[in-house]
Amino acid sequence: MTRTLASYLAGRWQTGTGTPSALSNPATEEILAHTSSAGIDLGEAMAFARAAGPGLRALTFAERGALLGAMAKAMHGAREELIALAIANGGNTRGDAKFDLDGAAATLAHYAELGAQLGKARVLVDGDAVQVGRTARLVGQHVWAPRPGVAVHINAFNFPAWGVAEKGACALLAGMPVVAKPATATALVAHRLMELWAPLLPPGALSLLCGSAGDLLDHLRGPDVLAFTGSSDTARMLRSHPRVVAESVRVNIEADSLNAAVLGPDVSPGTETWNLFLADVVRDMTQKTGQKCTAIRRVLVPHDRMDEVAQAMVERLGAIAVGDPSRDDVRMGPVATAQQARDVRAGIARLAAATTSVFGGDGAIAPVGVAAGKGYFVGPVVRAAADAMACAPLHEHEIFGPVSTIAGYDGQVATAAAILARGGGGLVTSIYGDDRDWVGGLVVLAAGWHGRLYLGSEKMAAQSPGPGTALPQLLHGGPGRAGDGGELGGSRGVHLYMQRCALQGDASVIKGLLA
Amino acid sequence: MTRTLASYLAGRWQTGTGTPSALSNPATEEILAHTSSAGIDLGEAMAFARAAGPGLRALTFAERGALLGAMAKAMHGAREELIALAIANGGNTRGDAKFDLDGAAATLAHYAELGAQLGKARVLVDGDAVQVGRTARLVGQHVWAPRPGVAVHINAFNFPAWGVAEKGACALLAGMPVVAKPATATALVAHRLMELWAPLLPPGALSLLCGSAGDLLDHLRGPDVLAFTGSSDTARMLRSHPRVVAESVRVNIEADSLNAAVLGPDVSPGTETWNLFLADVVRDMTQKTGQKCTAIRRVLVPHDRMDEVAQAMVERLGAIAVGDPSRDDVRMGPVATAQQARDVRAGIARLAAATTSVFGGDGAIAPVGVAAGKGYFVGPVVRAAADAMACAPLHEHEIFGPVSTIAGYDGQVATAAAILARGGGGLVTSIYGDDRDWVGGLVVLAAGWHGRLYLGSEKMAAQSPGPGTALPQLLHGGPGRAGDGGELGGSRGVHLYMQRCALQGDASVIKGLLA
Repeated sequence: MTRTLASYLAGRWQTGTGTPSALSNPATEEILAHTSSAGIDLGEAMAFARAAGPGLRALTFAERGALLGAMAKAMHGAREELIALAIANGGNTRGDAKFDLDGAAATLAHYAELGAQLGKARVLVDGDAVQVGRTARLVGQHVWAPRPGVAVHINAFNFPAWGVAEKGACALLAGMPVVAKPATATALVAHRLMELWAPLLPPGALSLLCGSAGDLLDHLRGPDVLAFTGSSDTARMLRSHPRVVAESVRVNIEADSLNAAVLGPDVSPGTETWNLFLADVVRDMTQKTGQKCTAIRRVLVPHDRMDEVAQAMVERLGAIAVGDPSRDDVRMGPVATAQQARDVRAGIARLAAATTSVFGGDGAIAPVGVAAGKGYFVGPVVRAAADAMACAPLHEHEIFGPVSTIAGYDGQVATAAAILARGGGGLVTSIYGDDRDWVGGLVVLAAGWHGRLYLGSEKMAAQSPGPGTALPQLLHGGPGRAGDGGELGGSRGVHLYMQRCALQGDASVIKGLLA
Repeated sequence: MTRTLASYLAGRWQTGTGTPSALSNPATEEILAHTSSAGIDLGEAMAFARAAGPGLRALTFAERGALLGAMAKAMHGAREELIALAIANGGNTRGDAKFDLDGAAATLAHYAELGAQLGKARVLVDGDAVQVGRTARLVGQHVWAPRPGVAVHINAFNFPAWGVAEKGACALLAGMPVVAKPATATALVAHRLMELWAPLLPPGALSLLCGSAGDLLDHLRGPDVLAFTGSSDTARMLRSHPRVVAESVRVNIEADSLNAAVLGPDVSPGTETWNLFLADVVRDMTQKTGQKCTAIRRVLVPHDRMDEVAQAMVERLGAIAVGDPSRDDVRMGPVATAQQARDVRAGIARLAAATTSVFGGDGAIAPVGVAAGKGYFVGPVVRAAADAMACAPLHEHEIFGPVSTIAGYDGQVATAAAILARGGGGLVTSIYGDDRDWVGGLVVLAAGWHGRLYLGSEKMAAQSPGPGTALPQLLHGGPGRAGDGGELGGSRGVHLYMQRCALQGDASVIKGLLA
């Protein structure tokens, strides 16, 4: 007997009609729940959220921050239950589940704290007042004001908790009601979170749409914000949606990214920096079964270190048990859906035509504790390309699974920068080295292509979370292929949901207004 | 005998083939020049600009600022010649021409100065470093780095000098080569500016495309920026261009805006604030023949002041001579093209169905010093709507000419805010009042709908440029109907052409890198 997941829209739990979608356990293929949004009035849902805007914006930042704090606290109280849902519905190991859930709670807590710091303000000051007249009496002062619309969030399947929390925290703190749509396949965690959060929030502040988005976007208006995490194909559809285009709806996209790790030529085997590099690469391949938008896909290594890197990765990956993620002895579970497994296998095949095998062959594997032929499993796969620049598929297709490629380069800053640029814009690249001039040179050339550069070095190795962790303090998003979005980054992520406005007038009037 | 305007592309002046477009004098309908971009290789032009990027980005901000300073200086040397071109090709009075040209030079000078202040940096620091590890050793520091692409600028017909200068200044200072396309009908000024500027700039730093955009956008890539000022219809086409959507090209739009002026209920006739309000409304109607994206279209007046405002506007507008703008006694010239004149007349007709006439009838006028039946003239037109909220056309169609509507409201902050919001998002609204609580209340409700709020009051009246002047220090752009863009605003406008990037790593490494 499976559950039916309702949507929380227009202030009430609503169940759709029509043929529902199934949510399954990707390790066992057992059906866990069904959901459908067919027949639900999404125009009413958007209008209800919109009507909640003035009340939410009448709260101070501190008051809105307190709501986020309550949301974080509610997660702690239900932690084990949520972990169990993530393991069952997401193919997560316990560690994967905690990564998503604790990341969600930490992000809510971060923005709760930011709200407390911002206090009783209702607009945020942006920079200093500048004289714009003959005398200091006439000034301009920029501010950020809440956008008077609704934030629509379309989240990815891989982080059902963190996705709804990180987007929601920024929008709610800014003063925008949120309508969030989790990916249907892994919606169990987001659904349970909505059950926990609904009683804590003003009516209409947060809504959850389980199932298809239906005609949701047809109800967007100019002051709204549409934020999406997922594939480039869907991103294109959203960005060119007639309503989005006609109304200049603000869109934030976080899409594909061929994140790289660059090993500097000064890094010798056995050093702290070398070990950090290897730990980061292996963690990113296997954590969440490689289904992280920030995961390292391209591992750039000086030609003379390629064999050593390959050997070290083979050793480490060989020790990782793949199988039913509910088992304590399993370190990596399946990918989330049958479609994901097909996509990953197709990506490996495309890559195989231009690379040589280092580990894992085509990803076929006999998972631990799973009935034969069941589950959406792909084992860790490492490929190698002698010349990174010459390997076109490496720079063109994100494989959203436990797959990475060791690719050779000559150790030069300019070469590394050119290879990075071939990815067409990314979320994060990690650069490992202790030669500060070399690192600095690459940063200057690479920063314009990335939303984040993680600089791995000897002295920070002991406390680094690795490049794959999106922290609330730091920007998450990247140009070009990555969608040209920007989330998080402390107050920067809140600004996405606010309007920058220049106040021009008498200095004392403006000062009084912001006091 | 007319001139043929060449384009400056791929480092040389190139003349297109095919049937050229005509550039005329809108007061006399005399043909002044022809231009065509047909047959010019725009792929080569974009590639040449792209190749200029690394050299431009290798310069410091101070060096790039010095280029802008030279561009401003070159304008001063050719000021009278440029004014004559603007009068002939733009229908500008001498005052209108100076407004465009001096605004352009001042904006270049502003960004030249900003470049000098930024000095020898090549990336800009964004906020403070924040601790992101267990200890202060692991930090995150956001920076702005130049986007490694080309800035494509599609400018509006009304400000041929200021448009190319304000967009160009921000992009060049950021380190992005620019390909600018002026509106064909009024391209003479921009063409002359390119002649002045080309010898001052590195090859490929600035290109000018006269005539149709052809397949220019098909050559856009992910790191590029497309900035447009003009109509909503063209904006939609640009925003949904397949290449823009596929590559996540950053797009900045400045489109329609139903800018309002709100007279506060405390403002009595004859006061400084009253006089400022009237002067601003009348200036915005007539300067550049109302062809300013920032011009006031909706004049919100408390019901009991409507007659007095109408009477004062009639008096002031009656004193303004309309005709051949090359004459010293003329205060307002024609609109820029025959199409503009048709569009403005159609807008007046639409408005007439829902309003009453205050001044100027349907805009028909006998211009001073112009042969009968010649020129694209529309006289100043003032309409009135007793109830602003009930007058739908007032909030839905921007009439890009010397037309505004006095619309009544009850003097309440909430009513004024609701009326402003009906415009769907705007560039600027001006609020006139000396009751600071009333003004402050409206600012909080209106800021989220606008890029700028101009606060007119007694004490700043003597030195105000009015709301219609876009200053380089202050944001220019607005949400929703206005396109959700943001230009200028000092360094903010430069950031449009840069990538925000979070550097994450050892505190001393990052500090050293930015020293």
